[in-house]
Amino acid sequence: MTAALPDAALDQLFRAARTYNAFGGEISDQTLHQLYDLVKFGPTEANTTPARFVFVKSQAAKEKLGPALSEGNFAKTMAAPVVVIVGYDMRFHDKLPYLFPHTDAKSWFEGSPEERMYRVALRNSSLQGAYLILAARALGLDTGPMSGFDTDKVDEAFFKGTAIRSNFLVNLGQGDPASIFARSPRLGFDEAARIE
Amino acid sequence: MTAALPDAALDQLFRAARTYNAFGGEISDQTLHQLYDLVKFGPTEANTTPARFVFVKSQAAKEKLGPALSEGNFAKTMAAPVVVIVGYDMRFHDKLPYLFPHTDAKSWFEGSPEERMYRVALRNSSLQGAYLILAARALGLDTGPMSGFDTDKVDEAFFKGTAIRSNFLVNLGQGDPASIFARSPRLGFDEAARIE
Repeated sequence: MTAALPDAALDQLFRAARTYNAFGGEISDQTLHQLYDLVKFGPTEANTTPARFVFVKSQAAKEKLGPALSEGNFAKTMAAPVVVIVGYDMRFHDKLPYLFPHTDAKSWFEGSPEERMYRVALRNSSLQGAYLILAARALGLDTGPMSGFDTDKVDEAFFKGTAIRSNFLVNLGQGDPASIFARSPRLGFDEAARIE
Repeated sequence: MTAALPDAALDQLFRAARTYNAFGGEISDQTLHQLYDLVKFGPTEANTTPARFVFVKSQAAKEKLGPALSEGNFAKTMAAPVVVIVGYDMRFHDKLPYLFPHTDAKSWFEGSPEERMYRVALRNSSLQGAYLILAARALGLDTGPMSGFDTDKVDEAFFKGTAIRSNFLVNLGQGDPASIFARSPRLGFDEAARIE
């Protein structure tokens, strides 16, 4: 039987981890590869792994992203060492001959209604986005996930001519503790869950 | 600066963790509460936390769930100590006066088109489902996430008369190493990501 991780690790991943609104530090390309090499192993439906990630790091890439951000997300994102665009590929099934080689999994999705493709792509890219948040924390980085931006503008600026659509954004860096808001309440077990 | 977790923890969470297809062991209600008390802290859009969890543990509850399962998921799920139904509440905004008390966040969603409510609920409950998978691994449990089931049947059996809809299932227990399939390939960094 596998043991639970020590309390300090549970704190780092969940209990003491917070959403930051100001970031410093630098993140090397090597760290971003290390991050992806954890994220990629997280489970997805039929190993579809539909998430596509753009690590926005240069001034030029930030200038492309800036006009898509909501006012409240602009300054902190422009100043963060890296902001990740978590996208999803609506043609994720094109890669299934490689990703799920033991059967013709591509045929499970080819020609499916857009509504189903959207559900699979959105759900599984969201799982992978959550893996990214927790993997970043596991590597000692702080995170600031955001959905306040214009998805059409991001798609036009970063994914034009592809079937990739943006899902959400995650600022990465060393969080400034002064930028944390007071923690909002959470639902108690009985409000969000039950044991049957 | 926060340090990265030790390699053994990264292995337990990501690299050595696998999807199991047979489970033993027992899971106490106390462990399920401990699990929820980690999951609840994971970040969601405007703290919406739309996921709702049913921990299916009793024989009676399993018999309600069984007819909804795909053939390939039936036996392993009936035998697992616990299977979690991860659902999403399409009326998640009803709880925002409690969850996001510093402003009238409920009005951001009330009356929104169903398409937008679905996107927020599906995306954020999927994030929370991913937090559950990694929190379970952090507590030393093994997991088996599944999407092969009839969502209408699960909604009818477990969420009738509510605005809660099922997203996916996760078997929990002590995984049998003999039940693991060979690991499927993952996309290389350059196929799924880029640094700009």
